[in-house]
Amino acid sequence: MTIDDWSIINNLMKTETKEKIIQAAFGIIHKKGFNNTGIQEILKTAGVPKGSFYFYFQNKDDLGLHLTDYFLASFISMADETLKTNKSPIAQLRLLFDQLLNNCEMADFQGGCLIGNLAQESGGLNDKFRVKLNEAFNVMQGKIGEFLQNAVSNNELPETTDVNETAGFILSGFEGAILQMKVAKSTEPFRVFNHFIFDKVLK
Amino acid sequence: MTIDDWSIINNLMKTETKEKIIQAAFGIIHKKGFNNTGIQEILKTAGVPKGSFYFYFQNKDDLGLHLTDYFLASFISMADETLKTNKSPIAQLRLLFDQLLNNCEMADFQGGCLIGNLAQESGGLNDKFRVKLNEAFNVMQGKIGEFLQNAVSNNELPETTDVNETAGFILSGFEGAILQMKVAKSTEPFRVFNHFIFDKVLK
Repeated sequence: MTIDDWSIINNLMKTETKEKIIQAAFGIIHKKGFNNTGIQEILKTAGVPKGSFYFYFQNKDDLGLHLTDYFLASFISMADETLKTNKSPIAQLRLLFDQLLNNCEMADFQGGCLIGNLAQESGGLNDKFRVKLNEAFNVMQGKIGEFLQNAVSNNELPETTDVNETAGFILSGFEGAILQMKVAKSTEPFRVFNHFIFDKVLK
Repeated sequence: MTIDDWSIINNLMKTETKEKIIQAAFGIIHKKGFNNTGIQEILKTAGVPKGSFYFYFQNKDDLGLHLTDYFLASFISMADETLKTNKSPIAQLRLLFDQLLNNCEMADFQGGCLIGNLAQESGGLNDKFRVKLNEAFNVMQGKIGEFLQNAVSNNELPETTDVNETAGFILSGFEGAILQMKVAKSTEPFRVFNHFIFDKVLK
């Protein structure tokens, strides 16, 4: 192999290790919270040697920023896949929330929305992190807005619909329902959310 | 003074110290989160000697249960005062949320709803705590339901209104709006919540 080949392999291994750390952190922090999770626990779960953390991340907050991107990318990917399905825009939005609910149920309601979890803890986090979480909420709101905009174009919603505002209300309603589901360990808060959003607000 | 007098004074001092610890814990945990706050920090803020904590509380979770009661009592008291005002039930409910928003703003959006904060962290808490938080949400929902029931009696809402379900939707919408306000550091999510709840859902 040439020096260039080694360099490519080396970079791939670096990316793989970084990804392992992020995935392990995602699983633990999603359940236990950011402040309650130690770097050592993450590295142990990831099967990565101690001491290698700071090779990939400046500090725990920096890992948090990467985690936010990781969660957001998976949300966007799920939304984009849903937007491609052969359903009306409102039915697609219902499907998206059903999939998100399914994720919550599979995690026994402990996980919820990572962005929401981190936001709840943001009083104890630095300002760069808070701004990042706010941006993440805005991106999620924008994605929900895409479904609503399509629904307006499809005459499922009136032309007068304030797409951005409605998307914001739906997002915060969903975040609140997730929160209640965590302690209720039941899908009832989601059922209520779904009923009001789809049978009342989006009518 | 008699032995009985001393006993009364002694009990009063005990109650006062316990109250001091709860109030200090409330202020810190509200901002920094439960898992991120140490007992020593609470005792230092309360001006209570180290080591006296376990005289009043079994452990940190036990303090959390007392905190939940403390927050709930202040919510109920605020709601009951609002119910006595000379306004229509729906106007009273608006006033209640305005007061809650005011509390959030005064705390620079860092505090939010203590029950919501604890619920977000409940993945890392024990099951007794989770059940307590669920009960607390139910009590808050019941209180909001009182306003709605009065509104039905007052013909501000149709008789067909599912009071309990609507109260649940309002509560989770508010919890979600608080969450978004924390990272946005703006009242915009509340304005949107208010608009949808009072101009659309409660019409």
